[in-house]
Amino acid sequence: MRVLILGGDGYLGWPTAMHLTARGHEVAVVDNYLRRRLCRQEDLTPLFEVPDLHERAAIWESESGCNIKVFIGDLTEWTFVETVFRTFIPEAVVHYAEQPSAPYSMLNRRAADLTLNNNLNATLNLIFAVREFCPDAHIVKLGTMGEYGTPNIDIEEGWLDVHHKGRRQKFLYPRQASSLYHTTKIMDTDLLWLYVRMWDLRVTDLMQGPVYGLITDENENYEQLFPFFNYDEIFGTVLNRFIVQAVAGYPLTVYGKGGQTRGYLNIKDTLQCIGLSLANPAKIGELRILNQFTETFSVLELAKKVQKVGVDLGLNVEIKPVENPRKEAEEHYYNPQHSGLLELGLKPNYLSDDFLEQMMRFVLKHKSNIKFDQIYRQVKWA
Amino acid sequence: MRVLILGGDGYLGWPTAMHLTARGHEVAVVDNYLRRRLCRQEDLTPLFEVPDLHERAAIWESESGCNIKVFIGDLTEWTFVETVFRTFIPEAVVHYAEQPSAPYSMLNRRAADLTLNNNLNATLNLIFAVREFCPDAHIVKLGTMGEYGTPNIDIEEGWLDVHHKGRRQKFLYPRQASSLYHTTKIMDTDLLWLYVRMWDLRVTDLMQGPVYGLITDENENYEQLFPFFNYDEIFGTVLNRFIVQAVAGYPLTVYGKGGQTRGYLNIKDTLQCIGLSLANPAKIGELRILNQFTETFSVLELAKKVQKVGVDLGLNVEIKPVENPRKEAEEHYYNPQHSGLLELGLKPNYLSDDFLEQMMRFVLKHKSNIKFDQIYRQVKWA
Repeated sequence: MRVLILGGDGYLGWPTAMHLTARGHEVAVVDNYLRRRLCRQEDLTPLFEVPDLHERAAIWESESGCNIKVFIGDLTEWTFVETVFRTFIPEAVVHYAEQPSAPYSMLNRRAADLTLNNNLNATLNLIFAVREFCPDAHIVKLGTMGEYGTPNIDIEEGWLDVHHKGRRQKFLYPRQASSLYHTTKIMDTDLLWLYVRMWDLRVTDLMQGPVYGLITDENENYEQLFPFFNYDEIFGTVLNRFIVQAVAGYPLTVYGKGGQTRGYLNIKDTLQCIGLSLANPAKIGELRILNQFTETFSVLELAKKVQKVGVDLGLNVEIKPVENPRKEAEEHYYNPQHSGLLELGLKPNYLSDDFLEQMMRFVLKHKSNIKFDQIYRQVKWA
Repeated sequence: MRVLILGGDGYLGWPTAMHLTARGHEVAVVDNYLRRRLCRQEDLTPLFEVPDLHERAAIWESESGCNIKVFIGDLTEWTFVETVFRTFIPEAVVHYAEQPSAPYSMLNRRAADLTLNNNLNATLNLIFAVREFCPDAHIVKLGTMGEYGTPNIDIEEGWLDVHHKGRRQKFLYPRQASSLYHTTKIMDTDLLWLYVRMWDLRVTDLMQGPVYGLITDENENYEQLFPFFNYDEIFGTVLNRFIVQAVAGYPLTVYGKGGQTRGYLNIKDTLQCIGLSLANPAKIGELRILNQFTETFSVLELAKKVQKVGVDLGLNVEIKPVENPRKEAEEHYYNPQHSGLLELGLKPNYLSDDFLEQMMRFVLKHKSNIKFDQIYRQVKWA
């Protein structure tokens, strides 16, 4: 299948490109290095250097024989989008091309402006490009579990049957997020749902939880092909960050009570979920929504798991509750459904002590790169 | 009260400015003449010429003694927004500054791009300006009943109590619109609801139905102070358009079955609702949502009312069902609540034969200006 990956330089975009080419798909990636630029602006460095996309594609081709076509440019510019879609007419598009950080989106007005305009214009241009150049193509869009927030009822998979005053209506499950980043993903859903109904697009929206891990089937022997690994408060996801903090001897910064519960998954499972979605596409005129995570943990539970494995490795791992810089519920009901991807065939890689130990041993090799001042920037929500 | 009106050149913005100054408020208006530009681009002319904002403000001041401060500029440009809010620090902001046409938003990619970027960036800049310059100011935002679409259950006022598997949660009433314009208003709501929760803003969201009419208490003796009156398919609202079609002898173009039912209101009631909202502001940290219309009609009912009054006036008024260029339900359940504004004191001006006759007599004076080719452009949704 011809698959176009938007945001192909990112933490998930690059591993997805390797994964799909290794399985025989024809793949092109698009990126404008936005995340690299924002990291430099905010003085945030990943744990190790990552070659640029052209270099990585060359390394991957020499190691695997698989070719990845690279387009560097800005998806918010229609003329560039046109060029990409004229050159590589896809049968499916995987859309990761968004400013992905909640704290970054709450940093200041300019960061909010960038997040809103990047995320929505990339999505709008994608919609128009698919309509113009490949109306039957399947759009696989990365949403986030954060769109749902933490309602006091079960979170269903994308839709909710409402009974009200003796009548019923099926709605998009009401979304209510707690950062501008998450809100732009809600707005993406608003856009996609409109044009699915108007133009019979085929869309799968993957409501993903925080991802952890580094190693995939494709990169395990090639450290140069590892994805970005941010351990900072802004671009790092929580479990990856805790692992680095444990190695660095920096007390694990649990926000407030630490009862914030989310659905997590291993990066290997993200790749499985993308593969399963592509192999089982949404129907014409369907917005299919799948909740993409394998198990739920509270932040405090994650910290304790990391602490236990770290102490077994001889590390000094403390847990230190800090004032919550975010506005969010620190204790709440959380019961999200996630049967759709399991039914498609997902075989979860659950979080294990072995995994944490492997990660810590890897991070230990790069310990000298860890910069303490990146770990806790305290981007305040209000 | 110091009231800033965004979109002060528009069909509702200008009458609101006069209305509030006549009641002793200190008023400034902001506009970039976007709607005038789009009308010229699409070769759409209003029924009569309307002086620009500086001229209108001068005429109004000479007639009433009331001053309206005028800012001409683009609210999507932060430097301009800063200048406005530094010069005129408002106690309340009425936000009409949006590309207001559903058909325009569905015209092509460029029109979609303009609608999305104008509407969302103006709203985001407003939010940041209020936070920076006047955090206690009350934002009165014009939403639209179209955000709700036509669900098969009652439409409540903004919120819905959901009972699900033995638990309950109050949500924003799920929104599902049928044009990009309406969808940008949903996205505005997403943004405002986020920042109300994060920053304790005070927001009233007025979910308005289609407005009809021209004459208000302030302008009834000054035709030069009448608002824009578009009768075209793109910027004209349905009842205003039918009145012009009746006068012009152009069969009333009912889309499909004509069962599309909406909540309508007289322009005089829009002004009342704005006044009542300002006099009874939302609380700190509250997103108050009010459904703003006075009565519901199907499109066919409106056509028949116009036909009856037109025939009584000796006009030849036919009703001609045409293929529906939109994707929408032509027959549907529709029971929207609208008690909030009545409780605040709204005294509705219901649609009457006398009103229709007065409007037709006015339009007859301008009959020679009516251009047939504007009436039915058939902007197709798909």
